[in-house]
Amino acid sequence: MSQYRYNFPTEIHYGAGVRKKAIENLKSRGFKRPLVVTDKGLAELPVLKDFVQLLQDGGLEPQLFAGIWGNPVKSQVTAGVEAYRKSRADSMIGFGGGAALDVAKAILLMIHHPGDLFDYEDDKPGALPVDGEIPHWIALPTTAGTGSEVGRSAVVSDDVTHIKKIIFSPRLLAKAVFADPELTLALPANVTAWTGMDALTHCVEAFLAKGHHPIADGIALEGIRLSAGALEKAVKDPGNLQARGDMLMASMMGAIAFQKGLGITHSCAHALSTVSDLHHGFANAVMIDHALAYNTQTVPERFVRMAEVVGLQGTERSPGGFLRWLSKLKASIGVPAKLSGAKVTPDKLGKLVDIAVQDVCHPSNPRACTRETFEQVFQAAF
Amino acid sequence: MSQYRYNFPTEIHYGAGVRKKAIENLKSRGFKRPLVVTDKGLAELPVLKDFVQLLQDGGLEPQLFAGIWGNPVKSQVTAGVEAYRKSRADSMIGFGGGAALDVAKAILLMIHHPGDLFDYEDDKPGALPVDGEIPHWIALPTTAGTGSEVGRSAVVSDDVTHIKKIIFSPRLLAKAVFADPELTLALPANVTAWTGMDALTHCVEAFLAKGHHPIADGIALEGIRLSAGALEKAVKDPGNLQARGDMLMASMMGAIAFQKGLGITHSCAHALSTVSDLHHGFANAVMIDHALAYNTQTVPERFVRMAEVVGLQGTERSPGGFLRWLSKLKASIGVPAKLSGAKVTPDKLGKLVDIAVQDVCHPSNPRACTRETFEQVFQAAF
Repeated sequence: MSQYRYNFPTEIHYGAGVRKKAIENLKSRGFKRPLVVTDKGLAELPVLKDFVQLLQDGGLEPQLFAGIWGNPVKSQVTAGVEAYRKSRADSMIGFGGGAALDVAKAILLMIHHPGDLFDYEDDKPGALPVDGEIPHWIALPTTAGTGSEVGRSAVVSDDVTHIKKIIFSPRLLAKAVFADPELTLALPANVTAWTGMDALTHCVEAFLAKGHHPIADGIALEGIRLSAGALEKAVKDPGNLQARGDMLMASMMGAIAFQKGLGITHSCAHALSTVSDLHHGFANAVMIDHALAYNTQTVPERFVRMAEVVGLQGTERSPGGFLRWLSKLKASIGVPAKLSGAKVTPDKLGKLVDIAVQDVCHPSNPRACTRETFEQVFQAAF
Repeated sequence: MSQYRYNFPTEIHYGAGVRKKAIENLKSRGFKRPLVVTDKGLAELPVLKDFVQLLQDGGLEPQLFAGIWGNPVKSQVTAGVEAYRKSRADSMIGFGGGAALDVAKAILLMIHHPGDLFDYEDDKPGALPVDGEIPHWIALPTTAGTGSEVGRSAVVSDDVTHIKKIIFSPRLLAKAVFADPELTLALPANVTAWTGMDALTHCVEAFLAKGHHPIADGIALEGIRLSAGALEKAVKDPGNLQARGDMLMASMMGAIAFQKGLGITHSCAHALSTVSDLHHGFANAVMIDHALAYNTQTVPERFVRMAEVVGLQGTERSPGGFLRWLSKLKASIGVPAKLSGAKVTPDKLGKLVDIAVQDVCHPSNPRACTRETFEQVFQAAF
């Protein structure tokens, strides 16, 4: 597998082994003590230990902050800022999945910005401006799902209320991404399936979203094509570097494309994470075919185009054909067809609907969503 | 037609009337005296006069530099730098086609950078670094072809030798683009056809180019789809704002996508511009089907995908079908099928081949190009 460099929209280095280029990125700019921000779980695994060793062998003095687990909360950010200061770090490396990369962005923001993290909440009236210095940072994703490495936002919850807050600024973009599929080879099959379905859902919902954004549409469609060819392989043949690479690329493409908007599936998934603590990608995966059925009459031609790029032929090049393809894909990678398979019981319906209808994602869904919509969609999924 | 804002990779405002937003972009940053850099030809037309009036009505004091014509040369840049200084401009507006926008970038570079413009030539050994201040600037394209408004390079020729030099830096990107299809409504049919074919050729050659760049591929394919639906309409129904808008979008998409690379058609076109002074887009248009025939055996599956997105069915979803579609498109918009229709005579063959084989574009062509290649391709086009 060759190595590539893309400058759009972030500098992206892509390919097997590109993690080694992280060293030069820091050294050439005079940085020596990067704080490696990562998940607690990853810190114990060879993938992180080998990477830290690689940095040391390259002449850097990496410092470690592995205080991230579960859904990120503000106290993790506070601890990370303290670790940055105490370790006299001069730069940062976000290393991990969406949680680690989101917390890395929030830590970076708070190094040189006053006040409380949530003072910077996006769209909050009177929010403080993100206008101070942001330390140099680079991102190395170890999952192929959220695409947080190319994103401009961090989702962090309040420790007590568990309410999710979005911190957004283009200035939080990583200075460079080193997308090395070798870092994803050790992902277990279920995480590969769930994160991969998250990437696919980003592409699909961005392509369907309201608004006119042909650039995002093109990226999303190509991400769907890549996922269709690679997701099942990555789950069933975990050492398949090409499939791992395609999913890593699709995850970045999904995150780039969803600046156009997301939709109904994400609103359902957010509710399921809050009410039943489901993994975000898993929740998207369980819901996607049930939720998207609501959109087929509104934008049938978009479903036909997706059916084409995933390789369906004849009469399956149709909205129904694409939904059936999604259902089959779910089954092939071990995602339950229905919420019962995710141990979510129908007595949660009211709470799920309450949260889904308040969610920020569905206003860009191509068909307007109401309480009744979510009632129908969740009921179909039970 | 609605108005949209995209932040990828440049801040792009798109839609009928978005030129009005240029005022706020400058005023909100405290700029008052933008130098409007434009073509000599445009300076006499209502489209520019109305725009300058719009800026004045908005409280700005626009200064005008309309010293650009033909293929840009260095003396135009020098004159522009002088105009910037003499007029005490504090910012710049590039307003025009590729030539005006390229010269605008070169002027911007030389405001705060020492030495000679060509000291900054891309890839020249010992080239000076583009590391100084670049004044704030915004771009308003008035043609739908080069996509220079989203590009990071300026092509400027030596006044004496006419040798083209490429100045490249990501720092030359416009701070914002205001892509307003109303500014393209007055383009004559032939310019619409030639610039439109330039945009389409960018998309096609980027999609075919060597290398692995799914993001560029997706953008290029969607640009091809837009062009297929809009180019003939824009030529035959010049007031069709939707078709004008689609072509303006396709031109930006082509320019974003061709960071992946271009190919054989562009090398032929560059030779034709140098030897026979053909308009770049016109040269691409005449050559595209003849030149791409050289690639069909190497990447047939890519031709099939292009045939799909332009709407071909059945057996026409093939490399041959796509080439026939290109030939028909050319005929429908008044582009001659062969070089004879462009008044280029076969006695130029040797010179054309000499220049084409030296061109920087064909190394990324999917099939390697030699002297013999260009001899065959030009002969097929005569």
